[in-house]
Amino acid sequence: MGSLHADVLENNSAFGLNPLDPEEFRRQGHMIIDFLADYYRDIEKYPVRSQVEPGYLRKRLPESAPYNPEPIETILQDVQKEIIPGITHWQSPNYFAYFPSSGSIAGFLGEMLSTGFNVVGFNWMSSPAATELESIVMDWLGKMLKLPKSFLFSGNGGGVLQGTTCEAILCTVTAARDRVLNRIGRENIGRLVVYASDQTHCALQKAAQIAGIHPKNFRAIATSKATAFGLSPDSFRSTIVADIEAGLIPLFLCATVGTTSSTAVDPIGPLCEVAKEYGIWVHIDAAYAGSACICPEFRHFIDGVENADSFSFNAHKWFFTTLDCCCLWVKDPSSLVKALSTSPEYLRNKATESRQVIDYKDWQIALSRRFRSMKLWMVLRSYGVANLRNFLRTHVKMAKQFEGLVAMDKRFEIVVPRNFAMVCFRLLPPAEEQKVYANGNSAYHHDHKAADLERANELNRKLLESINAAGRIYMTHAVVGGMYMIRFAVGATLTEDRHVNLAWKVVQDHADTILQA
Amino acid sequence: MGSLHADVLENNSAFGLNPLDPEEFRRQGHMIIDFLADYYRDIEKYPVRSQVEPGYLRKRLPESAPYNPEPIETILQDVQKEIIPGITHWQSPNYFAYFPSSGSIAGFLGEMLSTGFNVVGFNWMSSPAATELESIVMDWLGKMLKLPKSFLFSGNGGGVLQGTTCEAILCTVTAARDRVLNRIGRENIGRLVVYASDQTHCALQKAAQIAGIHPKNFRAIATSKATAFGLSPDSFRSTIVADIEAGLIPLFLCATVGTTSSTAVDPIGPLCEVAKEYGIWVHIDAAYAGSACICPEFRHFIDGVENADSFSFNAHKWFFTTLDCCCLWVKDPSSLVKALSTSPEYLRNKATESRQVIDYKDWQIALSRRFRSMKLWMVLRSYGVANLRNFLRTHVKMAKQFEGLVAMDKRFEIVVPRNFAMVCFRLLPPAEEQKVYANGNSAYHHDHKAADLERANELNRKLLESINAAGRIYMTHAVVGGMYMIRFAVGATLTEDRHVNLAWKVVQDHADTILQA
Repeated sequence: MGSLHADVLENNSAFGLNPLDPEEFRRQGHMIIDFLADYYRDIEKYPVRSQVEPGYLRKRLPESAPYNPEPIETILQDVQKEIIPGITHWQSPNYFAYFPSSGSIAGFLGEMLSTGFNVVGFNWMSSPAATELESIVMDWLGKMLKLPKSFLFSGNGGGVLQGTTCEAILCTVTAARDRVLNRIGRENIGRLVVYASDQTHCALQKAAQIAGIHPKNFRAIATSKATAFGLSPDSFRSTIVADIEAGLIPLFLCATVGTTSSTAVDPIGPLCEVAKEYGIWVHIDAAYAGSACICPEFRHFIDGVENADSFSFNAHKWFFTTLDCCCLWVKDPSSLVKALSTSPEYLRNKATESRQVIDYKDWQIALSRRFRSMKLWMVLRSYGVANLRNFLRTHVKMAKQFEGLVAMDKRFEIVVPRNFAMVCFRLLPPAEEQKVYANGNSAYHHDHKAADLERANELNRKLLESINAAGRIYMTHAVVGGMYMIRFAVGATLTEDRHVNLAWKVVQDHADTILQA
Repeated sequence: MGSLHADVLENNSAFGLNPLDPEEFRRQGHMIIDFLADYYRDIEKYPVRSQVEPGYLRKRLPESAPYNPEPIETILQDVQKEIIPGITHWQSPNYFAYFPSSGSIAGFLGEMLSTGFNVVGFNWMSSPAATELESIVMDWLGKMLKLPKSFLFSGNGGGVLQGTTCEAILCTVTAARDRVLNRIGRENIGRLVVYASDQTHCALQKAAQIAGIHPKNFRAIATSKATAFGLSPDSFRSTIVADIEAGLIPLFLCATVGTTSSTAVDPIGPLCEVAKEYGIWVHIDAAYAGSACICPEFRHFIDGVENADSFSFNAHKWFFTTLDCCCLWVKDPSSLVKALSTSPEYLRNKATESRQVIDYKDWQIALSRRFRSMKLWMVLRSYGVANLRNFLRTHVKMAKQFEGLVAMDKRFEIVVPRNFAMVCFRLLPPAEEQKVYANGNSAYHHDHKAADLERANELNRKLLESINAAGRIYMTHAVVGGMYMIRFAVGATLTEDRHVNLAWKVVQDHADTILQA
């Protein structure tokens, strides 16, 4: 009892309050709001990409958790002094890397409410509002995207909020897998084949791997510049035919609208037609570009979605809803539920047994789930459809503006056509600018071209690292068709025209330096 | 362009601000803090379990998202009027259902900072502080739990924050599966066997199912009152032996410390010894009870953990860290990484290639990941080890107090021994109170006993529904060994002695009514 008693004394003297005391919550909550408001106000003063070295933080923090409590004021000072230097500022207006993680006031407030209520919404019963708001909001969003009725609850489909696309794909792969194996026998798991293009996000390969698909049966079908790195339906079909001839069973296709490397778009309609012939489950991964499809002028990119089995996009990428929030719709929820449901006695309840409710735990991997629809609902209501379209259009317009600036500087080239709000460009090696290759296939020319390409790649690698190390802006790269290119992704919420103009000036300045070296 | 132009006009007139404008963020943020502080202050006035009927919300909300923005004031009114009635108040001091989802000011603030920075911490590079703080905090917590060094980074193991136990188990099952299949060939996936007790959380069965383990090869080994519903090492061994004789391959055991139904504890030490003989990966699921093991007097429940392969507990259950936050430690991170890593070109970076950093995307299912360590760090620092122990002890003390109250009322019985802060009890049918069964196995007595048991179960079902429908307190049930019991789980942060006393009074009042009916 000695040490227990000591604990109690320390508790009473140093921290007598209940850890959820409403008035202390109010005091500290206001403090953090001001901290974050100041952070957004001052965000441009930080280098966008963190400049720390591996292991920086272990040197600065103690080896063990404190025995006694520390005041919030001290902790916030440490956030400022120790944590912020190690943060890459995804909310900075000068952030153009990867894809955006576009925060918003409404998304933030929604997350606060969700965290404040802190309900564990595994089934309807555990907090009816969490389930019901989710199904309503997913129908709202589905209508905004003009998804066919078969994906909405009113059409016997339905939507669910997952954490990430990885989870959404794993769930659909598992559902597709079990739908087939329950028919043909589980011993055939080693014969199932999953299809994608070589531009498809690595989430698919990982999901297939977790779901026990044989790694040899994962097909990353080659794409090329000729199809703007979209998956060719002919290549898809010939791959399937070869697999069937080899005794394998085609299972699943993940088609992408807006690939990570270059925002390429797979032709959904024709791919679905091929898939249909072979009974293949088609998932459309529109993680990044799905948002844009709420604008009529972009909707055509998902034409054909009516023939897919499932569709997902990340509201946490380019839809002002903070991480994490992946929107998944399926036509046949029962296939998800069959693959993922559990009904232990301790969760039994009348509502579930009445079959009048959705228990979302059976639509996802985890049992516990946060009240994610709260933030999506706040975003939709706070901004409205008109503004949301407008925000996205503003980003696309800024990307166009950047594209125009690149096009005017003959030292650079745009590598692939811009579809949304990302520009893929590269600096040309000085000698190459005017170089015209003789047509022909001679080994000499081939080697020469390969060497030129590597030279160009190295130049752009150097350029990008030089820009990012300076900290003024942050961009990342991709390689498509062997070509290293710099990706300029507009979408950080705070970005305005002036930031895009500044970014281009930074690129030009670093190019000047590198070309003169 | 017509409609586009209209959108722009509406935007400018109705919502001219950037959606992340710092001063508007400040204004709306303060508003929400006050909303939530008031919610906590007034939380006792709401029925704990939501009283709405299925479909209540669809009747109250519009069919589509609004075209034009709505002010935050209107939205908050709707949260109060439409959402709160559909919420089951997990933060209420009168909440004793399932397991707690214990919020705290520090956990909330940590979530706010994480959401405010909104970084996507898939690898070190994408925000070094997110990765580094996580590995530091996991070492801190590991030390608090007195995990062996082999689970800490300093001992070549390491910890990672997952969303939920379901994800943690799926990752470890997948790692264990691939470790074996890479050795013996993937065609053997259908021969792998996963072990648990019949008290193990359904997350395991789901994880095994997702990972492609044949459903026939999932063993839920029977437990009984004789071992307090813990898994018997002898039963475990005999099940393994039978499987091996049948040509199957033992793969994975999930042992539980604090089962969901009754907080039973599997004997980790002896189970690990058996597992070791057969090369079985042992995961310890201490989702609920792991927290308590930071107190020296509870640490013995995880004795033997040094022989397990992985260990997890949920900081979002009973550790003041809001949902979701599951702490997972593994001895051999490379087995996780081998099963779950991907390295697409667009994520290549110098830090990863230097091999000096952790890329947590390879330790989990998803690529994107939130900055969850922020909230755990805030909780550890704001309260300190001493207070955290003290909070948990206070909950255990309150459970003891409730146990004492039950024991004094001869109409009730405690069904299983209390290990932590949950009491499992039931109301005895009136005639049964004094009934002594003759020893013996005659069919007559057996049938008689079964009928009595069903009568008792029905009585308790009625009692619980009557209590929960009244809304004053909320508890849930479980069935162990065929016996329906009511679970009284203390752990909501705001709960004090008086709430426990009130809860017992509510139980007694409803029992009076039901017994008199």
